[in-house]
Amino acid sequence: MIEITSVEGLPEIRPGDDLAALIAGRAELRDGDVLVVAQKVVSKAEGRVVRLADVEPSDEARRLAGEQDPRRIEVVLRESARIVRARPPLIIAETRHGFVCASAGVDASNAPEPGTVVLLPEDPDASAALLRERLGELTGSEIGVIVSDSFGRAWRRGTTDVAIGLAGIRPLLDLQGERDPVGYELHATVIAVADELAAAAELVLGKTAGTPAAVIRGVDARGEGSAREFVIPEERDLFR
Amino acid sequence: MIEITSVEGLPEIRPGDDLAALIAGRAELRDGDVLVVAQKVVSKAEGRVVRLADVEPSDEARRLAGEQDPRRIEVVLRESARIVRARPPLIIAETRHGFVCASAGVDASNAPEPGTVVLLPEDPDASAALLRERLGELTGSEIGVIVSDSFGRAWRRGTTDVAIGLAGIRPLLDLQGERDPVGYELHATVIAVADELAAAAELVLGKTAGTPAAVIRGVDARGEGSAREFVIPEERDLFR
Repeated sequence: MIEITSVEGLPEIRPGDDLAALIAGRAELRDGDVLVVAQKVVSKAEGRVVRLADVEPSDEARRLAGEQDPRRIEVVLRESARIVRARPPLIIAETRHGFVCASAGVDASNAPEPGTVVLLPEDPDASAALLRERLGELTGSEIGVIVSDSFGRAWRRGTTDVAIGLAGIRPLLDLQGERDPVGYELHATVIAVADELAAAAELVLGKTAGTPAAVIRGVDARGEGSAREFVIPEERDLFR
Repeated sequence: MIEITSVEGLPEIRPGDDLAALIAGRAELRDGDVLVVAQKVVSKAEGRVVRLADVEPSDEARRLAGEQDPRRIEVVLRESARIVRARPPLIIAETRHGFVCASAGVDASNAPEPGTVVLLPEDPDASAALLRERLGELTGSEIGVIVSDSFGRAWRRGTTDVAIGLAGIRPLLDLQGERDPVGYELHATVIAVADELAAAAELVLGKTAGTPAAVIRGVDARGEGSAREFVIPEERDLFR
């Protein structure tokens, strides 16, 4: 059986906050548990917040902005390695990490205050690794950590949470070469376990209720890896 | 807290089997629980199995097949409303339901025997509704039902399970117009709750272990709807 519990009572997170300590004080964490933390609070703790008043929009940002704030679009462009599709108000971009998502992950919802936007962490795997290390110190337990964000999907309405950073977790479960009960070899079965863990955690994370972390118990996802493994190499990407 | 439990001990499912009864005999089901059933067993119970020896491949199937069995490709074409991308051995197709996935959901893994392939249910929402109705008769409880399948994603390696059919479940949670704790209005937040439930259930469904159903307790996803709501209308689809 799997159990998923939300971490309740976290304060508004500020730059420099010891997020691991704040969580460890509010959750019972055991060896093998997976802690899923919403990107938004990780970014806030890391100070990845931009004040729009400080941003001078470029001509391209003004062109793409339509009726939106061109300063926000400027931040999106700075966070993008490549624009995949732009149809105002929607910009789908590839981030410098290689993730494809709306607005390159730049988001005004749940920002610290009006007029600010939150960026993705510089290196979400490193963010997860730091949380994992600090949780190990605080609890004496081996905790897997996922930094999650809500991504839209091609061809399918709605967002699901996915893993944009991880530590102590196997991102993908590769069943290629294994056999089903009838003996058929599974050729193309690679399961995005870390993304499923992020999606499962979202079920207890209120977007409006301010519950940005959850603990998943009962899944053995221990292993090494990086959320960058989710990025499809350019030459194998059917949808670039 | 959410609990996810696998339904253990199901036999190999055959056409005409009373899947709801087989599950109700092996799971404790309560009001508000969500039962997630892998498409494969639903299709088997509904007889959605094709013997490749009975299939005559078309010229197009032979052309697309490359080194694969052209009869399987013929079945894929018959199940497709539109081919989205074809790069052998991969065919990404839109099914007649409007879902975009590999091989239009036609799959040889976990098929009843070698030389057969399993199709998606004709109408997965109807399949879910029938299971829900029958479970209501058997248990006296209101059970939400999701028929799930493993779909690949654009730009992201690995599959996650999604809802291709549902009953008694709200597929999408629309937070547009609600406000975050700072008062920012959430403009574009529509959460694909049923897909997240399917993904969460996959964490206990062994692809090779023959565990095709799971019960999720503790999520209030009750509501009306159809998995067809996940289909993005053609005019709003950035990635057609």
